[in-house]
Amino acid sequence: MRNAFYISDGTAITAEVFGNATLSLFPMEFEHTTIPFVETREKALEVKAQIEQAAAKSNEKPIVFFTFVNPELSEIILASNAVCYDFISTFSSQLQNELGVEPVPKVHRTHSIHEQSYDFRIAAVNYALANDDGANIKDYQQADVILVGVSRSGKTPTSLYLALQYGIKAANYPLTPDDLDSGELPKSLQPYKNKLFGLTISPERLAAIRNERMANSRYASLRQCRIEIREVEMLYKRFRIPYYNSTHHSVEEMSAKIMAETGLQRRKY
Amino acid sequence: MRNAFYISDGTAITAEVFGNATLSLFPMEFEHTTIPFVETREKALEVKAQIEQAAAKSNEKPIVFFTFVNPELSEIILASNAVCYDFISTFSSQLQNELGVEPVPKVHRTHSIHEQSYDFRIAAVNYALANDDGANIKDYQQADVILVGVSRSGKTPTSLYLALQYGIKAANYPLTPDDLDSGELPKSLQPYKNKLFGLTISPERLAAIRNERMANSRYASLRQCRIEIREVEMLYKRFRIPYYNSTHHSVEEMSAKIMAETGLQRRKY
Repeated sequence: MRNAFYISDGTAITAEVFGNATLSLFPMEFEHTTIPFVETREKALEVKAQIEQAAAKSNEKPIVFFTFVNPELSEIILASNAVCYDFISTFSSQLQNELGVEPVPKVHRTHSIHEQSYDFRIAAVNYALANDDGANIKDYQQADVILVGVSRSGKTPTSLYLALQYGIKAANYPLTPDDLDSGELPKSLQPYKNKLFGLTISPERLAAIRNERMANSRYASLRQCRIEIREVEMLYKRFRIPYYNSTHHSVEEMSAKIMAETGLQRRKY
Repeated sequence: MRNAFYISDGTAITAEVFGNATLSLFPMEFEHTTIPFVETREKALEVKAQIEQAAAKSNEKPIVFFTFVNPELSEIILASNAVCYDFISTFSSQLQNELGVEPVPKVHRTHSIHEQSYDFRIAAVNYALANDDGANIKDYQQADVILVGVSRSGKTPTSLYLALQYGIKAANYPLTPDDLDSGELPKSLQPYKNKLFGLTISPERLAAIRNERMANSRYASLRQCRIEIREVEMLYKRFRIPYYNSTHHSVEEMSAKIMAETGLQRRKY
């Protein structure tokens, strides 16, 4: 299998995200290896040896996506027996001409605690946890968005992703069969109607997810799931709550959709 | 302020991560706009109009990072009055030569529910939540790693990041003053010593974080924080638990470090 390496003097998260997005275009399998925190000459030489060992073993040049602040480290990697992409420099030199400003490389520039957004994101994670699953209905004033939906429709992981990725304070509140029977919004949500965003899901997928939790229960029955989903969608329409179907969508896609539909501003870029 | 756009037919997460990493090299402020799910000609034309409005208003060409599967949409964006980077194609054409394989572009290739890793990652998030803060000591057999540390040393957000980003099942367990006094590992952790990874933090930073929770309490006092941190580091050394200091590090950095030190395999690339 062809080897792919993601290497950086920081977390290597950018190299992973970019390299994987590029390689996923090709209908091939890769053996992936990430090596973060390559901050010294010694470590870079070790990494070069590791790349060349992989090349020798597979008889093919590994594909290497790397980014370093220190050009001395870049040179060490570039000298290895591999196809190397210094993927950020490729664009930063073009951008330098366009912006008329010299780049100022700095280690741990992204994904570090020094990002302005960092404290926001951690506060948002703590908020999401404290306000998960209707656990706390007193702090909705602070919420950027309140996700609503029936049990197991994807509210919790979406709230956490919104917090970690974008610094958005997302509470979530489960709409129970009792709430749905009443045909009204729960009292605690009524003052915050404008912050509500609904999730829905196909009854079949919901039943499958609930069955993993409580097999063969009434809660997990397709009949019960059909009733709840029909009623929750009626509620969304009645109160003009924007909503999105999570059946075929990942938490990343739901989060991106919620950001786009609500017009919420990211606290992180 | 110079405008920066991140545009895609999917979530635009890759465009954001890559574009931001590149622009953050330049000591300038940018006005960031993300536009995900640009999947039709009509939507692309709207986006083109939005880019050109920004150009007219600021009197400077916006910087646009974009990626589309459909080349017709790429052409619409490329025709706008902006500096456009089709950042993935730049490398995929080079890679095509190297790999000898044609790229097969597909919408929602990354960050979608169809990724092999998706179910793993959601299961890992559910695991992290159910095993947060010592809430559940019966399922450590399933854990990939168990984070330990004193209260508020960063265990919970790190567990969640490991789950969402890498599909790693991370439990976390708070080491209390009682645990530390005993000088022994808590009974529930003893069978899983090889899965433990410790977090530590400077007493000053810990006191600041605890004071936000419970101002002027004994729990938040610098004296108490100093004692706990001294004892927890002694415990790590005594039981040879690898550990990392979170004082100056983000959850992304801690997670990358934990992955590197433990040799855990990512379930997502």
